[in-house]
Amino acid sequence: MSQPWDFVLVTSTATRETFAQHVATERAAFADDLDPERRATFDRIKVEGIREASIGVVVTHDQRRGGPNVLGRRTIADTGLYSTVLAIQNLWLAATAEGLGLGWVSFYREEFLRGLLDIPAQVRPVAWLCLGTVTHLADVPDLERHGWRSRRPLADAVHHETWSH
Amino acid sequence: MSQPWDFVLVTSTATRETFAQHVATERAAFADDLDPERRATFDRIKVEGIREASIGVVVTHDQRRGGPNVLGRRTIADTGLYSTVLAIQNLWLAATAEGLGLGWVSFYREEFLRGLLDIPAQVRPVAWLCLGTVTHLADVPDLERHGWRSRRPLADAVHHETWSH
Repeated sequence: MSQPWDFVLVTSTATRETFAQHVATERAAFADDLDPERRATFDRIKVEGIREASIGVVVTHDQRRGGPNVLGRRTIADTGLYSTVLAIQNLWLAATAEGLGLGWVSFYREEFLRGLLDIPAQVRPVAWLCLGTVTHLADVPDLERHGWRSRRPLADAVHHETWSH
Repeated sequence: MSQPWDFVLVTSTATRETFAQHVATERAAFADDLDPERRATFDRIKVEGIREASIGVVVTHDQRRGGPNVLGRRTIADTGLYSTVLAIQNLWLAATAEGLGLGWVSFYREEFLRGLLDIPAQVRPVAWLCLGTVTHLADVPDLERHGWRSRRPLADAVHHETWSH
């Protein structure tokens, strides 16, 4: 209930162009580190729709929201950050239920985005979400469809009583 | 798609009892820091159902999962952690859709839980979820219902083009 999230709605062409160029630079730096085969796979994947989305939704986290006594944050400082990420998934699923597409851009430097949107120093940018109308919603995640990575069997993720069982 | 999450299903009475006692200690330490009025409010709130839940689901995050080249993690190390938290919200909403109750316990020390469940050093416990059948699902969040905190108006959370507008 600390509700530490905020949403900056970005429609400005100039802001989006500046951010898209920054992301392109970071994407290229990532690609340069890949071996040739992985790079060929990666180059086929669309990683952002910053310019063409209906809107950009930048989600931020304010760790000071709610004052000093926030339940759970005494022992685990990231509890507030978790709340903000949970809110993003609610937004994501709500968008999907409405037939809208949503893509989370994470190829950026937090400091760059903070400067671009005048986000205060104590507030952390967590996501740039590309939100908008799409021709269709894919059944298979893009990274799986393009052969970047395959699904892990559920049985591998489930343990019983302790981690080692 | 790095799927960095794991789930440890805990039904053992002994494990749950040990964890519940640890949480009670941390809860008391939190309560001791509150002023009398806030403390009286806090004492009315149920913060865990560790013993009586059908099952405990401990969700963990493995930052090494997926190898060195994970999309988005080059610029933002927490991208993987965000993925794990998104998975928790999917689990939470799926449980709700099935009429099951889910409560996230965060009054614990990560190192304590790591030791209790033999979680490897590089894996981070993110949540202990109390999952199970309930008499009903509440419409109003417990912290709001008990007067701990009220909802923030949506308009306060929405900004336009930059943070300051």
